Amino acid sequence: MIDVPTLVEQARQGRPRAVARLISLVENASPHLREVMAALAPYTGRAYTVGLTGSPGVGKSTSTSALVTAYRKRGKRVGVLAVDPSSPFSGGALLGDRVRMQDHATDPEVYIRSMATRGHLGGLSWAAPQALRVLDAAGCEVILVETVGVGQSEVEIAAQADTTVVLLAPGMGDGIQAAKAGILEIGDVFVVNKADRDGADATVRELGHMLALGESRKPGDWRPPIVKTVAARSEGVDETVEALEKHRAWMEERGELAARRRRRAGDEVEAIAVAALRSRMGDLHGDRRLESLAERVAAGTLDPYAAADELVDGVTQA
Amino acid sequence: MIDVPTLVEQARQGRPRAVARLISLVENASPHLREVMAALAPYTGRAYTVGLTGSPGVGKSTSTSALVTAYRKRGKRVGVLAVDPSSPFSGGALLGDRVRMQDHATDPEVYIRSMATRGHLGGLSWAAPQALRVLDAAGCEVILVETVGVGQSEVEIAAQADTTVVLLAPGMGDGIQAAKAGILEIGDVFVVNKADRDGADATVRELGHMLALGESRKPGDWRPPIVKTVAARSEGVDETVEALEKHRAWMEERGELAARRRRRAGDEVEAIAVAALRSRMGDLHGDRRLESLAERVAAGTLDPYAAADELVDGVTQA
Repeated sequence: MIDVPTLVEQARQGRPRAVARLISLVENASPHLREVMAALAPYTGRAYTVGLTGSPGVGKSTSTSALVTAYRKRGKRVGVLAVDPSSPFSGGALLGDRVRMQDHATDPEVYIRSMATRGHLGGLSWAAPQALRVLDAAGCEVILVETVGVGQSEVEIAAQADTTVVLLAPGMGDGIQAAKAGILEIGDVFVVNKADRDGADATVRELGHMLALGESRKPGDWRPPIVKTVAARSEGVDETVEALEKHRAWMEERGELAARRRRRAGDEVEAIAVAALRSRMGDLHGDRRLESLAERVAAGTLDPYAAADELVDGVTQA
Repeated sequence: MIDVPTLVEQARQGRPRAVARLISLVENASPHLREVMAALAPYTGRAYTVGLTGSPGVGKSTSTSALVTAYRKRGKRVGVLAVDPSSPFSGGALLGDRVRMQDHATDPEVYIRSMATRGHLGGLSWAAPQALRVLDAAGCEVILVETVGVGQSEVEIAAQADTTVVLLAPGMGDGIQAAKAGILEIGDVFVVNKADRDGADATVRELGHMLALGESRKPGDWRPPIVKTVAARSEGVDETVEALEKHRAWMEERGELAARRRRRAGDEVEAIAVAALRSRMGDLHGDRRLESLAERVAAGTLDPYAAADELVDGVTQA
């Protein structure tokens, strides 16, 4: 038996097991999700979320860990959500290269959670936002959302944050390749990690050129800064936090933070609504309505638009 | 002014310009599509469709052209649809590497058409089936659907055919790589082209092993044959046609052909219905309903499921 009100109350008090349990409900697309989200809603909207993305090998995990340390020094309660959209494995186990996170494992003011979203009924589009809502209600003031890869899904998840950090490293042609593949557009702050390596300045320069090329900004628009870090030695991490705070201040001043959050909520609501309608269509499979429509279309006795009309009618009159 | 009944009548008589015009209406997601599909429906369901997919360089275009020649020798009217899901260019222009197709350019019993589907409102999911319906109504007995790349979309398009051919070539590690990426599952017939090159037998062997590994077939199930061809010299092309005919006969005997077509029609109808519902949601943007729901969700005064319920109600009561 799942006692949602008690779980939510315990999560609000910062009890780690309750937080973990609620995120598992999200991960497994529990039928209780609706109740969970309704119970959490009043306690959400406070956390500041930072998405981190970048190719494997740029040091995402190390950078995330260093940011946790930096925010803890500032007295913030921090949440970390490591999302792996392709992994079928679930359950909050810390992944191999996530050992550094264990530095924070005993800190009661830090929640760290890996989440697999493959198989999530609603897809990625709202698994991550729902998990964020749990951490938000649990009192996390800053939530770092780290994605494991650089596929389209990862980029989308990272872009759903209040501020999105794109990480690169020198000597990785693929860093810039990935940037070309569309992550330049989503970066609010760029971090060139492993900046003690050869070619760091060249990477910063190249990135600067690419950002300048893509620029069609009006005066007063945000210009994504490029920060050099050596996350493993905590170098440049304070500067990263500073850049994040600046971006946040800029967004708040412009009303952009509220606008982003509204857009995000709108996308989430729309995704849930589409899934609900799809599921109603699925129910029609039960009475073989779709099958019979498909049969008539395949036979040429009905055109696909007329068939779709019937399907829509079936759904909307359900 | 578009006179749909006249266009459809001319297409049925095999007039190339009318066929081209109708496919352009599909490609551009014309508002007349609904009328076009209704007018075409009674004349569809006769064509046998063959999807061809494989990595760039395996000789898809040459193989398609050789298959056209082979089917023409058998007296069949043939349609060719070259689909490029990523290209923004449209309009039936023959692409650079498609020159070989010009062998058939003066044959009145062959329709060749390139189609770009990027930007198609409904996405790929039904642009290709709609174009197929045009060629079907125009009396094409065999339609070859060639996709340009090997991305997810290309694979999906090729898999929508009655019979799907997966092409490989020796000495292309990426052929097998692509196979690993999920095209093994969709191949009803495998063709190892450029079989006069070194390593052809090794490719056939490797492919045979991989197919055997993936096998969990019951007695009587279809075992995808592997045909060796040198399409540029028309070698092995008759054997390919034979394999295709065998697969078709097997499917017809089992009722699988009709089942596949019903499934395909069902997917198409469902995609059109979801798009229609999405578009109704989009109309709700007009009266700012979604915006106001999103604002309440972002503020935590409404949970996303309750918001989605309101959105669904708005759509279904429209």
